[in-house]
Amino acid sequence: MSSHAPDSQIYPELRRMEQAGLIDGKQVPWGPRSTKKQYSITDLGIEAFREWMCTPIEYTPARNVHHLQAAYFEWTDTEHARAHLQNHIDYYTAQLAQWTIIHRSILERTNLTMVKRIEKYPTEQHERIVAFKAFAYEGMLSLAQAEIDWAHKGLALLDQLASPDEIPTAEPVRQQ
Amino acid sequence: MSSHAPDSQIYPELRRMEQAGLIDGKQVPWGPRSTKKQYSITDLGIEAFREWMCTPIEYTPARNVHHLQAAYFEWTDTEHARAHLQNHIDYYTAQLAQWTIIHRSILERTNLTMVKRIEKYPTEQHERIVAFKAFAYEGMLSLAQAEIDWAHKGLALLDQLASPDEIPTAEPVRQQ
Repeated sequence: MSSHAPDSQIYPELRRMEQAGLIDGKQVPWGPRSTKKQYSITDLGIEAFREWMCTPIEYTPARNVHHLQAAYFEWTDTEHARAHLQNHIDYYTAQLAQWTIIHRSILERTNLTMVKRIEKYPTEQHERIVAFKAFAYEGMLSLAQAEIDWAHKGLALLDQLASPDEIPTAEPVRQQ
Repeated sequence: MSSHAPDSQIYPELRRMEQAGLIDGKQVPWGPRSTKKQYSITDLGIEAFREWMCTPIEYTPARNVHHLQAAYFEWTDTEHARAHLQNHIDYYTAQLAQWTIIHRSILERTNLTMVKRIEKYPTEQHERIVAFKAFAYEGMLSLAQAEIDWAHKGLALLDQLASPDEIPTAEPVRQQ
């Protein structure tokens, strides 16, 4: 999956997991005169992961700051609102393109990470493993598509509201 | 919008905003012998909000832990995977029902928060204010619907993969 945690978050987390016995770190040669630490999962780590996989994850209310900003578009002008929505479309279109490629490469089993992963499992499990990875990407793809469709609807709404005359941006009547 | 920050987060934030001059706190009577602090936005606060409304928000890769868990469903059995997806459907169905009511009450202008809010603005701005609030909820509704559709697809996938025989859960071949 596409997790983009910065190194500054990953290394403390690896140390924490090693201390908890979930992973095992070994120094291995790295270049001519250096070493690096290579981690492998322990039996305890596998058990902990399997337990997590059997545990329902709590749902926390999603905060979508872009939807929130759109709720107050009367505070900006049509041009800025349009730019926000165009940004939204551009961002999710790029995500969609990237994930579509990954999704296809998983299903076609040309994805290198996937190929390496399934090699470790008996052949009769390969179909499931591939199907679930592809399914996860389908979730991400459908959310990205929903965001794009929503932003296009917003652009149409701006066209409709802006004509024939531009209405001034919101200014509440101040109460003392 | 539905922001559910706990009080423990709201009060320090209010103090921070007051110190920054964005809001103004006044002690007002609260019951027979108590007072409470009532905040109102300052001109500086209005300017800061308007500036934020003109600023593109950065996009950070979304982490959807439920999609992530689904990517590894081979680590659990069909029953647990099915329960996760059913939870997903139940959660977003409840959200959808709740937001559909709010969305309708905004459009029909029976939503009390909305009625109170638009009263402060000139009549010619009401249509925009209502339309943008409704539009924000439409974004949330379409994401919730996408989540529900995705989970239903997952249930169908589980049916398809599980038959005719249940395949054992993943167990990687350990390499030393």
